Amino acid sequence: MQILVLGGDGYLGWPTALHLSAAGHDVAVCDNFARRGYDVELGVESLVPIASLDERIVAWEEVSGKTIKSYIGDLCDAAFVHQMIADFHPDTVVHFGEQRAAPYSMIDQAHAVYTQTNNVVGTLNVMYAIGDLDRDIHLVKLGTMGEYGTPNIDIEEGWLTVKHNGRRDRVLFPKRPGSFYHLSKVHDSHNIEFGCRVWGLRATDLNQGVVYGADTDHTKLDSRLATRFDYDGVFGTVLNRMVIQAVLGHSLTVYGNGTQTRGLINIVDTVECIRLASEHPADSGEFRVFNQFTESLSILQIAETIAREYPGECVIEHVDNPRVEAENHYYNAKHTALVDLGLKPTCLSTALIDHLFDVVERHKDRVDLASIMPTVRWRETASELPRPASVLAPVE
Amino acid sequence: MQILVLGGDGYLGWPTALHLSAAGHDVAVCDNFARRGYDVELGVESLVPIASLDERIVAWEEVSGKTIKSYIGDLCDAAFVHQMIADFHPDTVVHFGEQRAAPYSMIDQAHAVYTQTNNVVGTLNVMYAIGDLDRDIHLVKLGTMGEYGTPNIDIEEGWLTVKHNGRRDRVLFPKRPGSFYHLSKVHDSHNIEFGCRVWGLRATDLNQGVVYGADTDHTKLDSRLATRFDYDGVFGTVLNRMVIQAVLGHSLTVYGNGTQTRGLINIVDTVECIRLASEHPADSGEFRVFNQFTESLSILQIAETIAREYPGECVIEHVDNPRVEAENHYYNAKHTALVDLGLKPTCLSTALIDHLFDVVERHKDRVDLASIMPTVRWRETASELPRPASVLAPVE
Repeated sequence: MQILVLGGDGYLGWPTALHLSAAGHDVAVCDNFARRGYDVELGVESLVPIASLDERIVAWEEVSGKTIKSYIGDLCDAAFVHQMIADFHPDTVVHFGEQRAAPYSMIDQAHAVYTQTNNVVGTLNVMYAIGDLDRDIHLVKLGTMGEYGTPNIDIEEGWLTVKHNGRRDRVLFPKRPGSFYHLSKVHDSHNIEFGCRVWGLRATDLNQGVVYGADTDHTKLDSRLATRFDYDGVFGTVLNRMVIQAVLGHSLTVYGNGTQTRGLINIVDTVECIRLASEHPADSGEFRVFNQFTESLSILQIAETIAREYPGECVIEHVDNPRVEAENHYYNAKHTALVDLGLKPTCLSTALIDHLFDVVERHKDRVDLASIMPTVRWRETASELPRPASVLAPVE
Repeated sequence: MQILVLGGDGYLGWPTALHLSAAGHDVAVCDNFARRGYDVELGVESLVPIASLDERIVAWEEVSGKTIKSYIGDLCDAAFVHQMIADFHPDTVVHFGEQRAAPYSMIDQAHAVYTQTNNVVGTLNVMYAIGDLDRDIHLVKLGTMGEYGTPNIDIEEGWLTVKHNGRRDRVLFPKRPGSFYHLSKVHDSHNIEFGCRVWGLRATDLNQGVVYGADTDHTKLDSRLATRFDYDGVFGTVLNRMVIQAVLGHSLTVYGNGTQTRGLINIVDTVECIRLASEHPADSGEFRVFNQFTESLSILQIAETIAREYPGECVIEHVDNPRVEAENHYYNAKHTALVDLGLKPTCLSTALIDHLFDVVERHKDRVDLASIMPTVRWRETASELPRPASVLAPVE
């Protein structure tokens, strides 16, 4: 297949491009390097050093003999998007090309507006290019489990059959997301579902859990193929951050009481899910939704697991929750569709956590402790950036 | 009360400003004249001539002795919005300031992106200004019944209690809107509901039906106080358009079989609903939704009513439906909350239709027949504009 990966220079986009290329697909990537720009803006860096996209592509050709074409441009530029899709003519467009951090979207008005505009307009432009050029192109769009919020009923995969006053309908699952970022994905989902109805688009919306892990079979092959590993308070996600705190001998910081639950997925499963979704496209006119995670854990359970596995001393500390979210809530989200397509889940294990400890140990001189704590507060309309100089006290 | 009407130069914004001012409130209006710009872009005009905003405000002071302050600027300009709300410090912001035509949003990529960006960013900026300055300011936001689409279950007022697998929750009513415009309002609703949760905003989301009618008690008082009356294929709504077709002796054009149902509301009820919502604010943190329409009629029923009332000959003609929508569908939408607040509905009647015939008769030399027929087609990614020279044949 011809597969175009939007956001192909990012944490997941790049390993996905490698995985699809290794699987025999003809892959191109598109990026505008916005993610590298956020690092500069926030004064943070990936824990694992990353090569430039050009170096990555050269390294992959050396290692695998396979080429990956690159398109450098902004998805908000409609003419660029149209030209790229006309030029590469993909069978599948895998869309990782959005601003993806909830805290970043909650910094202030400008970051909220940027996130929603960037994500919604980029996706509209992709839909219009497909609608204009070839409606058989399958759009595989990354969403997030955070779109659902924490309803008091079971979370189904995108659609819900409702009985009401003696009548019945199949409706989009009602959503109450927890940030302007999560909202941007809800907006995308509504726009794409409409595109399926009016233009007969084929779409798969992947509501992904929190991804953890530092590498895949292919990013490991050469240091130039490594992907980012973020741990800062804005782009870092919970499990990766806590592993770093453990290795550095600092307390594991749990937001609030830690009973809030997240769907999790290992990076090796993410790339495999994308391959499975791409190779089994949605039908013409179908808006297909998969919940892309493999296990659910509370934040406290994640901290306890890491504390248990870490060979040294490890203290768990509760800090004020900067987010507005239910901490004690029902959570039962379905996730069977990708397993039905053949996914073999990689669950959080001793071996996996040990491997992450090794990765962090190798790069721990690069850690900027001051960037770890949250500074973006949901109840405020503007938060302080950059972060305070040092907020984590060493464990005695 | 201090009430700020965003989009206060428009079809409904202006009569609302007059109605609130007449009711004793201290009113300001904000507009960027985008609506007048669309006329220029599309080469169309309001059937009823309208004065400039300055002339309108002068006329209102002459007629009533009351002043209306004006703020000229774009809601997408965050600094302008913040400054305006700080300066006027309203108790209530009534938000009509969005691009409001479904066909306009479906012209092509640029118009879809414009509509969603303009509407979503403008509303985010209003939310941020309120969140920053005074979270007690009540946001009264205009939505549309079209957000819901045509589900096979009863449409409740914004929220739905769902029972699923033995559990129960109150969720946002699931929506499947029918254009990029309608989608922009769904995005707004999700963003505002989030603002109520994280910032404790007070919000009323008014899902309004199709508005018809040419004037209110106050717009009638002086020709300079008149509001717009649109009949073109992009901004004209069904009832107003058909009245014009009747007066000009042309067939009433029904899209498709005409069994698709719409909630309708008279312009005099719209302005009264806004007064009622403003004077009975939502609670702190409450996202309150009212369905703002007074009766449901199919497109064919509307045409038949007009044909029956018109004194001359009147033929109904079915034309291809340019939209993608269910024509045979269940429709039962609740609309009791505004009646509970005291609304006395003005239903479509012989007197009302006769009055509309009179208005059109008075201005019929201004009608541009070529602009009436639809040219924007939902299944296309780009539609032809301007409209063909003449597509309506006189009835023999």
